[in-house]
Amino acid sequence: MQDKLRFGVFGGGSWGTAIVKMLTENGDRVGWYMRSDSAIRHIIKEGHNPNYLSSVEFEVEQLHLSHDINEIVEASDVLIFAIPSAFLEGELQKLTASLKHKVIFSAIKGIVPESGLIVGEHFHEKYNIPFENIGVLTGPCHAEEVALERLSYLTIACADAEKAKMVAQHLKSEYIRTKISDDIIGTEYAAMLKNIYAIAAGIAHGLGYGDNFQSVLMSNAIREMKRFIDKVYKMKRNINASAYLGDLLVTGYSVFSRNRMFGNMIGKGYTVKSAMMEMNMVAEGYYATKSAHLLMEKLEKKSKTPIINAVYQILYKNKDPKKVFEKLTEKLD
Amino acid sequence: MQDKLRFGVFGGGSWGTAIVKMLTENGDRVGWYMRSDSAIRHIIKEGHNPNYLSSVEFEVEQLHLSHDINEIVEASDVLIFAIPSAFLEGELQKLTASLKHKVIFSAIKGIVPESGLIVGEHFHEKYNIPFENIGVLTGPCHAEEVALERLSYLTIACADAEKAKMVAQHLKSEYIRTKISDDIIGTEYAAMLKNIYAIAAGIAHGLGYGDNFQSVLMSNAIREMKRFIDKVYKMKRNINASAYLGDLLVTGYSVFSRNRMFGNMIGKGYTVKSAMMEMNMVAEGYYATKSAHLLMEKLEKKSKTPIINAVYQILYKNKDPKKVFEKLTEKLD
Repeated sequence: MQDKLRFGVFGGGSWGTAIVKMLTENGDRVGWYMRSDSAIRHIIKEGHNPNYLSSVEFEVEQLHLSHDINEIVEASDVLIFAIPSAFLEGELQKLTASLKHKVIFSAIKGIVPESGLIVGEHFHEKYNIPFENIGVLTGPCHAEEVALERLSYLTIACADAEKAKMVAQHLKSEYIRTKISDDIIGTEYAAMLKNIYAIAAGIAHGLGYGDNFQSVLMSNAIREMKRFIDKVYKMKRNINASAYLGDLLVTGYSVFSRNRMFGNMIGKGYTVKSAMMEMNMVAEGYYATKSAHLLMEKLEKKSKTPIINAVYQILYKNKDPKKVFEKLTEKLD
Repeated sequence: MQDKLRFGVFGGGSWGTAIVKMLTENGDRVGWYMRSDSAIRHIIKEGHNPNYLSSVEFEVEQLHLSHDINEIVEASDVLIFAIPSAFLEGELQKLTASLKHKVIFSAIKGIVPESGLIVGEHFHEKYNIPFENIGVLTGPCHAEEVALERLSYLTIACADAEKAKMVAQHLKSEYIRTKISDDIIGTEYAAMLKNIYAIAAGIAHGLGYGDNFQSVLMSNAIREMKRFIDKVYKMKRNINASAYLGDLLVTGYSVFSRNRMFGNMIGKGYTVKSAMMEMNMVAEGYYATKSAHLLMEKLEKKSKTPIINAVYQILYKNKDPKKVFEKLTEKLD
């Protein structure tokens, strides 16, 4: 990679906006793709994203904005994707620019519905990107706190440690600390699984379980996450590192998490469909639950995943949350 | 032990009251020692503790109340202590009744200031109680949620598994699940250390750190707790079990935790003394911090405990919380 890396961020949501903020903090010029032309015009005129983290002010000359995905791909060496997983493949279909020699980082927490793969695997299998050019950018990190410049820690995972270091170098600042990792599979699965556990936490809360149970649920969730990830890809990792346990906690304890909110509505008696309509969006953990369930079905020696199973039964098998959770409580300890 | 165990609970605070509630749930008659004679008279007349968890109603005929500690010791086979650690030794000084052949469970989260020992060790060293007659009753469990009969999980630790099982049998009910463990040292240290981490979480919150940092702090705290406990007493334990991680989380995320509240005041600029006066009590984590610090000093090969060290510097060395935490953030990941 050349010394002066050119970064492109794909996605105009809150996480994309936060990442652009982090990158521009170091004086970098950043490519930024988003679909909405009116949002781009607003940013150029007013210096902030009208829809997400609107308190964040940008120096417009540091931004290379475009609603043409190919323009930003061509202008960038490192592509950071922060598009909801449900829309990723639709966006990639627009590509005419080559991804060869690009370094691709996923800042997406979820499964690509079209392939049932986590994002890194999707790029590898469907776009022939070698694993040494694929990375993951993960929290624990609420975008809203980046906007407030509250101290946050990111984990940058890549099989090629040099690339992880270089990306980390560009992201870190006064209020962002970075850590590198070589566990691209594990960190990405953790980021996906935690959304399922956040749904579970929400369901429990909606059903009237309290803080004592929530702590037991999280304690079981991290053990289940370890069993799951070890089954998918065994390597030496400390599941209590920030990228796994920290990320689980920041989501599972957040009252702002959309996944937890979705679960809470289910626990309170909404149907899955009405909860989705009420939220006007699909929580990423909804897809993740199905993918995780399918993956566990496929693996010969299943690992014990009672929490994922419970959420699956509720979301996809129309089972009564109260009864499913009563059974689940017998399996936790 | 005889088949029909007689239980005595020592302490009229919220945790003692919750334990009496759990025991009476199964129809047991329970001995209950508390200092306040007026509270005893109120319970006998009104069926509830006037000072703590007053919504909990007791069948008075199930209670053997006394403000004479010796009377309850003599009438009991299993003694469960739920007296704040700072007052424990003062109460034990009143003993004329023998503790020989008694099974002693600690439901106290802290260090006995007079000996600098955790409660189990204190009974072992100062009162010659053999370890097979010593146990620990631990959460994660807010007493307030027991009062509300919200599902909670307790861990009952004893070197003698039969005794742990028997005690568990008497505590469990509709809303209490129990798990047994043989790690009396580890569970007791975990219960003590988590109060230090709750103070740290409070300080961070008081200083303006957000949820992202809190999750990183907890992720580091559980790894630090593991290093600490492994150093004190190495054995096979899963630090992510409820009695360790769950207990850390229920306290570290609780806005009602007195330790977290104490830390929060320190972070907001109160001196240690004024925070204590304002709270009208001493948070148990305050003593625990000193004991943990001393213990780590004594051990030859120190384990890395940056969070405990930071809290110690602030509480006992009058160091500026802001500066200490700025340094601490460099050591976390």
